[in-house]
Amino acid sequence: MPLRLDTRSPDFPEQFRIFLATKREVSQDVAEAVAAIVEDVRTRGDAALIELSKRFDRIDLAASGIRVDRSEIAAALKAAEPEIVAALRLAHDRIHAYHSRQLPRSERYTDEIGVELGHRWTPVDAVGLYVPGGTAAYPSSVLMNAVPAKVAGVKRLAMVVPAPDGVLNPLVLAAAELAGVDEIYRIGGAQAVAALAYGTQTIPPVAKIVGPGNAYVAAAKRHVFGTVGIDMVAGPSEVLVVADGEQNPDWIAADLLAQAEHDTAAQSILMTDDDALAEAVIAAVERQLATLPRCEIAGTSWRDYGAVIRLASLEEAPALVDRVAPEHLEIMAADAEGLAERIHHAGAIFLGGHTPEAIGDYVGGSNHVLPTARSARFSSGLNVLDFMKRTSFLKCGPEQLRALGPAAVTIGTAEGLGAHARSVAIRLNL
Amino acid sequence: MPLRLDTRSPDFPEQFRIFLATKREVSQDVAEAVAAIVEDVRTRGDAALIELSKRFDRIDLAASGIRVDRSEIAAALKAAEPEIVAALRLAHDRIHAYHSRQLPRSERYTDEIGVELGHRWTPVDAVGLYVPGGTAAYPSSVLMNAVPAKVAGVKRLAMVVPAPDGVLNPLVLAAAELAGVDEIYRIGGAQAVAALAYGTQTIPPVAKIVGPGNAYVAAAKRHVFGTVGIDMVAGPSEVLVVADGEQNPDWIAADLLAQAEHDTAAQSILMTDDDALAEAVIAAVERQLATLPRCEIAGTSWRDYGAVIRLASLEEAPALVDRVAPEHLEIMAADAEGLAERIHHAGAIFLGGHTPEAIGDYVGGSNHVLPTARSARFSSGLNVLDFMKRTSFLKCGPEQLRALGPAAVTIGTAEGLGAHARSVAIRLNL
Repeated sequence: MPLRLDTRSPDFPEQFRIFLATKREVSQDVAEAVAAIVEDVRTRGDAALIELSKRFDRIDLAASGIRVDRSEIAAALKAAEPEIVAALRLAHDRIHAYHSRQLPRSERYTDEIGVELGHRWTPVDAVGLYVPGGTAAYPSSVLMNAVPAKVAGVKRLAMVVPAPDGVLNPLVLAAAELAGVDEIYRIGGAQAVAALAYGTQTIPPVAKIVGPGNAYVAAAKRHVFGTVGIDMVAGPSEVLVVADGEQNPDWIAADLLAQAEHDTAAQSILMTDDDALAEAVIAAVERQLATLPRCEIAGTSWRDYGAVIRLASLEEAPALVDRVAPEHLEIMAADAEGLAERIHHAGAIFLGGHTPEAIGDYVGGSNHVLPTARSARFSSGLNVLDFMKRTSFLKCGPEQLRALGPAAVTIGTAEGLGAHARSVAIRLNL
Repeated sequence: MPLRLDTRSPDFPEQFRIFLATKREVSQDVAEAVAAIVEDVRTRGDAALIELSKRFDRIDLAASGIRVDRSEIAAALKAAEPEIVAALRLAHDRIHAYHSRQLPRSERYTDEIGVELGHRWTPVDAVGLYVPGGTAAYPSSVLMNAVPAKVAGVKRLAMVVPAPDGVLNPLVLAAAELAGVDEIYRIGGAQAVAALAYGTQTIPPVAKIVGPGNAYVAAAKRHVFGTVGIDMVAGPSEVLVVADGEQNPDWIAADLLAQAEHDTAAQSILMTDDDALAEAVIAAVERQLATLPRCEIAGTSWRDYGAVIRLASLEEAPALVDRVAPEHLEIMAADAEGLAERIHHAGAIFLGGHTPEAIGDYVGGSNHVLPTARSARFSSGLNVLDFMKRTSFLKCGPEQLRALGPAAVTIGTAEGLGAHARSVAIRLNL
């Protein structure tokens, strides 16, 4: 049974605090193993990749090649069912349209004393995209990571995906082809991250690495951070549904389970002001679990981390939601818009009963790479700006330097940075 | 003497590669010591802060208080020389004006099939600002970090600054007061980062930590990353000056030394197509060094990491600059604008002979917290967006769900995520 909380209970504040503090993941300490792997790839390059892939993925890269041939990629797209290709194409086009609106504007302006200022956005030249292998190889994730990079103008998008026992998911290749991925390498784990960061004989280095992965991949990204940029290190996923008594409990149960099936550490939370709805959802979850392919994972997640929180009124929801800062927030209530306006910390908000999170996961157009584990308090879902960077501009003429220079000399001198002060003073004959 | 390279030399490509690969900082491995300090503060809170500050800063926080009194802050501003207060106020106002233009727009729109999409930007609630103590305590850095946070709308900006032997730099307090910093704590090192990330009895936790610090501070920020957001971990600073033969060698030398005086690991580079200018700059550097307060630091930096690169033509500059991806780029050449347009990787560009970097460091208005050590390839200077995050919105009605739902069911099924597919199908009676 999920955890039951009630805001009307006197010990709710303490129980809610404990609920928020519960860690959902045993953090594996793999930093040392990862450091050794990264160093190995950095110094030995392809030879290390071949050896490590033999050990971890049981694949002989010397025979198969590290890079996946263009013909193999084209074949995967051609061999895929037309229905799934059409669905991925629809997803691609909608993701592309949504993200195209995120392209930032550069600007240049002259201020009131004649100083020219501004900034210019440019794309990152080369990006690496990590895609997990095996069961968690999702073509939708390829689109969600690759499309914003391509919209940003990234020239070289290199994907790595492990091929355990030599097997690659053809739909992952198909999605990469649709998204315009430029290179694909059949490597994974910390060794793939190292190869992207430092380069090998076969793989030129990139400037930034994005994409989800297991504990080794996450630790490797942390390790190479600084040499290259990285995206957020993703934690276990969560959904929070805020619902009033008029909603369909079967739909809500289905949404809670869609989150729970990801992972036993996933978390599904319902907040409602209606007892009957809460009971009906709990019953529906049990009923639906019975016929779910991934019922074991979903059931474990629901039992271990699921929660049903009874509110005295939906007016309480915004403040509590902000404390959870959920990755996904569904609001199914008469005043969904009004509630949404008062919420500050959420990765994505799905409004109304006809917007299940799965629409956003696949074909809505917005990104499904979202801040997990309360990080929506300080970070955003993946977007075009993650693949761009900004250069600032400053231009003074003699008159502007005369106007601003003395203050710069004063501050430089006060900070004990005499050469800073002099670099201005020397131009003003001070 | 600085390193001399010449693009016309046959071994230039290899020498330039080695030059770029040179590490300018011995990375101290303090991760283990930092992990222990962080854990101590996390479990014991204020008691650990008091003990660690006694040990590292020789200050008794139990007597002085952890938090700096408002009266102490106001007194620092009042006691400061009017000239420096006026200079800091000018800097503040110009930084505020520049960053105010960075406020992003939220948007909401309806696409061609009636799906409502959009995103909303909101500020991070609470931000911690680390300010180094001792000689590297710069009031200008306080402004550069605090002003964008306040422009973003951060409600609670908590500053930490170590007070070795009980001493705080009054100009740092004055700058904090000008910038609207809400709380100041006299703590530093890894313990201060831990206190901001996890909170103590005295210090409520924040959601993001920014600001420069030593190896311990950098390691602590890495350690708490995920629990809170962090900014870039700053490396040693650099300037690259691209100049034609018409420029004033004394001015260029002053700018190279302004960079070099920061730190023995700082780097100053000149690229020019004019031999006479190169020689004149080198001579001017030696001359100016003799009368510089920080001549030892600047001299060491210039000897160890300084470089003068002779180009066959300034046309070669953009490609070479992009490989350096300098934090600061000064272009002093007839066609400064044309060259700037062809450069993609630089933290900030200063155009023309009357824009020494020191203007940008203090009073230009743009930010002086910029990507160091080649990270301009993938990251940007500090800006308002660093203190905000974005929530995406998605809203379908029944008609939009009917249009998009089948594709979502197809992809969910193909990915083996049956509950995802069902959460859509159940609403469509599929």
